Amino acid sequence: MNLPESRAACLALDTADPLAAHRAEFDLPEGIIYLDGNSLGPLPRRTPGVVANVVAEQWGTDLITGWNRHGWLDLPRRVGNAIGGLIGAHPGEVVVADSTSVNLFKALSAALALRPGRTTILSERDNFPTDLYIAQGLIAQLGGRHTLKLVDDDPAAHLGADTAVVMLTHVNYRTGAMHDLAAITVRAHAAGALMLWDLAHSAGAVPVDLNAAGADLAVGCGYKYLNGGPGAPAFLFVPERHQAAFTQPLSGWMGHAAPFQFETTYRPADDVGRFLCGTPPVLSMAALEVGVSTVAAAGMSALREKSMALTSLFDGLVARDCPSLVQVTPTDPACRGSQICLRHPEAYAVMQALIAGGTIGDFRMPDILRFGFAPLYVRFVDVWDAAAQLSRVLATGAWDRPEFHTRQRVT
Amino acid sequence: MNLPESRAACLALDTADPLAAHRAEFDLPEGIIYLDGNSLGPLPRRTPGVVANVVAEQWGTDLITGWNRHGWLDLPRRVGNAIGGLIGAHPGEVVVADSTSVNLFKALSAALALRPGRTTILSERDNFPTDLYIAQGLIAQLGGRHTLKLVDDDPAAHLGADTAVVMLTHVNYRTGAMHDLAAITVRAHAAGALMLWDLAHSAGAVPVDLNAAGADLAVGCGYKYLNGGPGAPAFLFVPERHQAAFTQPLSGWMGHAAPFQFETTYRPADDVGRFLCGTPPVLSMAALEVGVSTVAAAGMSALREKSMALTSLFDGLVARDCPSLVQVTPTDPACRGSQICLRHPEAYAVMQALIAGGTIGDFRMPDILRFGFAPLYVRFVDVWDAAAQLSRVLATGAWDRPEFHTRQRVT
Repeated sequence: MNLPESRAACLALDTADPLAAHRAEFDLPEGIIYLDGNSLGPLPRRTPGVVANVVAEQWGTDLITGWNRHGWLDLPRRVGNAIGGLIGAHPGEVVVADSTSVNLFKALSAALALRPGRTTILSERDNFPTDLYIAQGLIAQLGGRHTLKLVDDDPAAHLGADTAVVMLTHVNYRTGAMHDLAAITVRAHAAGALMLWDLAHSAGAVPVDLNAAGADLAVGCGYKYLNGGPGAPAFLFVPERHQAAFTQPLSGWMGHAAPFQFETTYRPADDVGRFLCGTPPVLSMAALEVGVSTVAAAGMSALREKSMALTSLFDGLVARDCPSLVQVTPTDPACRGSQICLRHPEAYAVMQALIAGGTIGDFRMPDILRFGFAPLYVRFVDVWDAAAQLSRVLATGAWDRPEFHTRQRVT
Repeated sequence: MNLPESRAACLALDTADPLAAHRAEFDLPEGIIYLDGNSLGPLPRRTPGVVANVVAEQWGTDLITGWNRHGWLDLPRRVGNAIGGLIGAHPGEVVVADSTSVNLFKALSAALALRPGRTTILSERDNFPTDLYIAQGLIAQLGGRHTLKLVDDDPAAHLGADTAVVMLTHVNYRTGAMHDLAAITVRAHAAGALMLWDLAHSAGAVPVDLNAAGADLAVGCGYKYLNGGPGAPAFLFVPERHQAAFTQPLSGWMGHAAPFQFETTYRPADDVGRFLCGTPPVLSMAALEVGVSTVAAAGMSALREKSMALTSLFDGLVARDCPSLVQVTPTDPACRGSQICLRHPEAYAVMQALIAGGTIGDFRMPDILRFGFAPLYVRFVDVWDAAAQLSRVLATGAWDRPEFHTRQRVT
């Protein structure tokens, strides 16, 4: 895109933005430019009311009868279907449950059980750590017969006759680079492997069509672009063709074919419900349902179009005004998610200075400034202002104060 | 206890009850006698405000910075410590995380790994089904080398040289019978087995002293007597002496020694945190924290004393006025939890008739009426009125209407 020449030009882009009205669905604090919706999505305006109703009316008034009256038991499938609509899943192929990590454990277990003759889990060294940790924990539990093969370049180039499952995060959490989901899935299948996608930085951010790609399994996160709130439950996708064949070890009562028959022996549900385990967290699920609806109302293709325009604008402004930064995100918008990541030796302090100035992005080890551009609520003028602030902080050395070097934990 | 002779005598007991004031901490609907707090605890009055604050202020205003500002990452340990105080755990020995089912999986995995030469999980056929299902799922995943041995009488009598772990629910969900936690733990240890307790119907209901008993592992539920709300997160106890030796396969990033270093290889935290997995569900944890505080404020020994008085009253009234019912709960209050269960061939319809009349208890397959008496908010007069209603429903056959026979799912 041609760089707008002024802040006023960005304001004009916002006026013309067909998604502009969606920003009003969020309760964003005054004076903050929030470029961290890829870590924790902001609060939808409807969420406090929905949660308050679940707490005071559904729970407070209806007590135990809430399970039937308010369909609490349907939440995992109902919210799952809503997410499914964003990622190319059919109804009945996605459930909301547990955390992304727990769902990865189920998915990897199911995949290894379906490829008993193969012993390699193929992934990337730069995958999000919990994905790797879960694979390591599973391998240890299975007696060490399997190997987690971590590669640094094109993962599909490392497929082999021993590859049971390829586990990749579609959009890299640190670089923002986006894999070609369809092409890698085809190559995994050609090698006889199953394909498991982590959509943590994709769901609600970029269009995904799991069924068109023939993906075998996917997991993802509820609290990033889906705006479900801190620690929102996660989701898990299992295509209908695999549901009867996949088993998973976290066989809790909610995954039973007849949970309320209280049978002594586990019989898995004959649908995606066999990937459920314990009782669904109703408050958190209700909040997630609202968050997902904010994305669904906008539509993924409109979101993607704006997302690419936003990242291109930031990309261009930074390239022009911040010569000391090295961009680690691909420059082609088609090859990245909804974020831009930049390297700076003092990235931590730079980000603290930005946050102190009202622009909230993320620091990622060891030297990455990460900026997420959620097109539902980030404006073109926000991008302009954030780039200007970044340029100022770098040009003036405003980041080099003691208080900006003090490390805190940030998720 | 001597049966009070009148409703007025029960009102007098309530007036004299040192715990009477605690009832005001709950938002109980008018006209309902709630005897199902052992399935879903009621709403504490403080919960809506606390949850609303977490949603609107902590999340809405502080966004990603909430993780540091509001100690969200400390919630698993902080709420865990509060629960630990109710079950005889030291600070640092309990975490809140995931569901009871998922925590059972971690606990059983840890136990089997610590007893590699033994292959039997010993439990009861009448244990809560999800406990059995999780054991079955784990056994299948480990290749079928282990056996789940289910017994119908004294489980400790079935201990053997091959018993790796004994998994028992302290208070039976269906009968209310309570195991002698200390005695069985001693016998398990004498046989070289580890002892895992499920405290779903104990935590907040009966005094438990896990460390005095030398228990090796325990799990429990947040949404019953702990009043955490529907699907509240669960807890897991690991005594300090075992923490370094226990490993568990759900090795997500929150269990890592340094989660925000983003290392490629999992290193378990050196404390009970190694039993954490994914990102904590903040909304649900905040609600649970309030629920736990309602119990802690009353104190377990006062709660137990009142609980025994309540169940004895109900027990006595039912024995006198409901001759068609067979009590399946032990008659000695010292041998039961905070519930009374009664057998009736048409238990489902009888319970529906009671609910229609304002007394909410539970039906449990196949023919059990289950009444929970949470001493925090159940009054002596409630027990009197519920017994009177039960007697009336049975004497008049009021349960035998078509609408009371229509089955709904109830958790």
